[in-house]
Amino acid sequence: MNLEKIAEIVDGQLNGTSDTEILGAAALKNARSGEISFVENHGKTDFAETAKNIEASCLLVPEDFDMELPCAFIRVKNPKLAFAKVAEKLYPPNFRFNDHHPTAVIHEKADVRAGYVGAFVTIGENTHIGEGAQIHDGVRIGSHVTIGKHTVIRPNAVIYDHVSIGHDCVIHAGVVIGADGFGFVRDREGYVKFPQIGTVVIEDNVEIGANSCVDRGALGATRIGAGTKIDNLVQIAHNVEIGRRVVIASQTGISGSTVIEDDCVIGGQVGFGDHARVLSGAIIGSQAGVLPGKIVRAGVWWGTPVQPLDEYKRQNAHVKGIARLKDEVKELKRQVTEMRGEK
Amino acid sequence: MNLEKIAEIVDGQLNGTSDTEILGAAALKNARSGEISFVENHGKTDFAETAKNIEASCLLVPEDFDMELPCAFIRVKNPKLAFAKVAEKLYPPNFRFNDHHPTAVIHEKADVRAGYVGAFVTIGENTHIGEGAQIHDGVRIGSHVTIGKHTVIRPNAVIYDHVSIGHDCVIHAGVVIGADGFGFVRDREGYVKFPQIGTVVIEDNVEIGANSCVDRGALGATRIGAGTKIDNLVQIAHNVEIGRRVVIASQTGISGSTVIEDDCVIGGQVGFGDHARVLSGAIIGSQAGVLPGKIVRAGVWWGTPVQPLDEYKRQNAHVKGIARLKDEVKELKRQVTEMRGEK
Amino acid sequence: MNLEKIAEIVDGQLNGTSDTEILGAAALKNARSGEISFVENHGKTDFAETAKNIEASCLLVPEDFDMELPCAFIRVKNPKLAFAKVAEKLYPPNFRFNDHHPTAVIHEKADVRAGYVGAFVTIGENTHIGEGAQIHDGVRIGSHVTIGKHTVIRPNAVIYDHVSIGHDCVIHAGVVIGADGFGFVRDREGYVKFPQIGTVVIEDNVEIGANSCVDRGALGATRIGAGTKIDNLVQIAHNVEIGRRVVIASQTGISGSTVIEDDCVIGGQVGFGDHARVLSGAIIGSQAGVLPGKIVRAGVWWGTPVQPLDEYKRQNAHVKGIARLKDEVKELKRQVTEMRGEK
Repeated sequence: MNLEKIAEIVDGQLNGTSDTEILGAAALKNARSGEISFVENHGKTDFAETAKNIEASCLLVPEDFDMELPCAFIRVKNPKLAFAKVAEKLYPPNFRFNDHHPTAVIHEKADVRAGYVGAFVTIGENTHIGEGAQIHDGVRIGSHVTIGKHTVIRPNAVIYDHVSIGHDCVIHAGVVIGADGFGFVRDREGYVKFPQIGTVVIEDNVEIGANSCVDRGALGATRIGAGTKIDNLVQIAHNVEIGRRVVIASQTGISGSTVIEDDCVIGGQVGFGDHARVLSGAIIGSQAGVLPGKIVRAGVWWGTPVQPLDEYKRQNAHVKGIARLKDEVKELKRQVTEMRGEK
Repeated sequence: MNLEKIAEIVDGQLNGTSDTEILGAAALKNARSGEISFVENHGKTDFAETAKNIEASCLLVPEDFDMELPCAFIRVKNPKLAFAKVAEKLYPPNFRFNDHHPTAVIHEKADVRAGYVGAFVTIGENTHIGEGAQIHDGVRIGSHVTIGKHTVIRPNAVIYDHVSIGHDCVIHAGVVIGADGFGFVRDREGYVKFPQIGTVVIEDNVEIGANSCVDRGALGATRIGAGTKIDNLVQIAHNVEIGRRVVIASQTGISGSTVIEDDCVIGGQVGFGDHARVLSGAIIGSQAGVLPGKIVRAGVWWGTPVQPLDEYKRQNAHVKGIARLKDEVKELKRQVTEMRGEK
Repeated sequence: MNLEKIAEIVDGQLNGTSDTEILGAAALKNARSGEISFVENHGKTDFAETAKNIEASCLLVPEDFDMELPCAFIRVKNPKLAFAKVAEKLYPPNFRFNDHHPTAVIHEKADVRAGYVGAFVTIGENTHIGEGAQIHDGVRIGSHVTIGKHTVIRPNAVIYDHVSIGHDCVIHAGVVIGADGFGFVRDREGYVKFPQIGTVVIEDNVEIGANSCVDRGALGATRIGAGTKIDNLVQIAHNVEIGRRVVIASQTGISGSTVIEDDCVIGGQVGFGDHARVLSGAIIGSQAGVLPGKIVRAGVWWGTPVQPLDEYKRQNAHVKGIARLKDEVKELKRQVTEMRGEK
């Protein structure tokens, strides 16, 4: 891909030779000739030093960039975003077509249009898999499952019966979708299983990280909206509803029936009690704890129980000030005792 | 199943036509004709509104229920429990019998009486699997393993050698039972592995959620008592002993040799240090932290380090009150300084 | 193995018959005739009682041990370490050689010298697997992967393309190595995937616990140093660098580009923000939270945000003292008000 093409993709202004060929993308300090990279934070004092050693053939730089560079560059609004878009073209996903491994066990009543079905895959009855989908080795797909076009399911992931996954999703290795929700009712002798007979509905363009779990609804569905991105080892319980373009970092756990609306950002190791609701635009910091039934409004939140970041910081400062407060009270006591003695 | 039969199962008092047929179970607001649902919290002000739109053919209601309903109903002690029992009959687990997939690799010295052995399953030497057990696609079962009757092992779960699992258990997809405990002894050059040569013993009627891990004992066994229910992504370390009818929510981690006695309820993302002991009847809130060696008595606990919920709340209130306390001390200082100046 | 041989292995001083045969290792209270065990904390008051019931044939004891024992014993510097070394000889790993299961699907351009390749394994193009490696049932190994000699990969683990693993490693069941890092850039319409085209490099003698995840670098590599031991359900994000002989307990999560230097010890359920750096020799307690960019020096740390253990304890004591402080302030107010009234 030459620089003219790249400038076009990123809607940027090229400063350099338009037919220079770019073969790869790399981090600034590792990029070599023939590679493109990007610049963030060039205002930092050490950037001038870094700039001297640049070997990349082209850099994506902010619009206000005005330093000397030993290579071509393209001015863009958001260099990191532009870099992501260029890399997407340079490293297209390695899709296979018309490649169904002979060891795959596909039910005769399944409708499998996938481009790739790997070795030792199993696919159940009445399951529909869209065109171009990539079902990797050892994946288990139950019965009555729907998987959209161009969706990628990585090795050894497990999709239980009746789950629906949209187009252009990526489900990483070891993910389990549709396992029973965790619901039991206490009887005299022990626990009776509450029915876990609902489904999971995952919309288009969702990514779910390795070894994460999305449980099926008890009754009704667990839902994940289009464009949502979920990291590794995340737990999504029965009947949770996650909106569109939500980001959830690793090891976060969301209890039953909690709702997270569109465009929220959730840190890692956050815990949500059941029936909580996170309103659109909320940002929740890592390791926070949201109590059952809590409503979290737009803004930045942290701590357990979760509170607005400002309040959290103010309270933390107060706690750090207790030692001084104790000293002040001690001194006051001394003064008061002294005054009382004088009378 | 008709309403007469259902009333009998739940030991309830039917108000309606005894031969009405029920074909399914659903949540109150989704239930349609031919379905049964249940009522909790009918005292809530909006229930009257909900009641108008009910389409279910029958509801399970509390014994003191006295509102008008547009459908049949059955009075029972615990509607949710009754609903769970009816749903169990309406949706019996989908067991298969005499169905061993030809691709399964079963050691010639294994004794496999399972009703179902899925595709690409592997079963090792001297392993015994009871009648009616359901071993799903891609499950790995090592050597010298015992699995009881009617136990279900979901796809791609892994059972290491010498593990014992009882009757009527459910082991969800991706679970790993019997991996080495995490024990190392520091030497000058690095870490030497402490032997992990014990076993895992899981009693009857235990459920373990997707991608959870139960490590084998270092020496001796890791044990899980009958009727205990464990959620997804839970970590149970070597030589942990969990009693009967314990409930453990998602992402909780229990360190080596800790004991959790019968009938405890453990929230999600709780962390237990090693050699702790949780006495029968304790309830530990989500994200709590139990220090190594700590003894936790019956009652409700929360926080890190874990403390009785009342104390936790009182302390939290104190912390929230620091700002006011600071103001009070400031005012006192002013007054005392003033008085000292006056003399 | 007789006691003379064992005394030699552990470099200890035998008190007993040198040709007594030892067939197994067990915990002190379970060890029977023919087994060896070890003694820690013999200073405890109840050890004398325990000593009476010992059935083991030999004990490994500290150098200053001076009690009567009904069996042979060997004085050593570190009994637990000595026990680990003896157990290693008594229970050598059960390696197989020249055992490639016929169902394994190995790419014709792969170079597989492994001693054992289990059933339903898949191995991709241009992958090299060293001599003596043990690749268990259902493992997925991608293309351009390198796996060293005598490394063990347990059932259903997944190794993505271009990952490199050293010699003598143990990768437990369900582990996922090389999945895409979690990096997205926000665009007007949603999230664009930041390229995840780097690799993972794992050095020799590393152990990774069941269902843990190690993501590939976005650009560049995620690295784990030699001799490092990682527990179950741990998350290691893209471009993390972990040094040598680091120990990381279960359910800890490490965000992108964070560095943990040699010889650190990290507890369970710890969370690390991105771009943090933990200097060599730091010990971080369970459930601690390390903020993004934070530098953690050698010493013991705890809490969220992480602080030196001493400070954490002092502050905790202060918080516990607030109730008393409030009472003191109340009393002071009373006294001051009284004095002001008197004037």
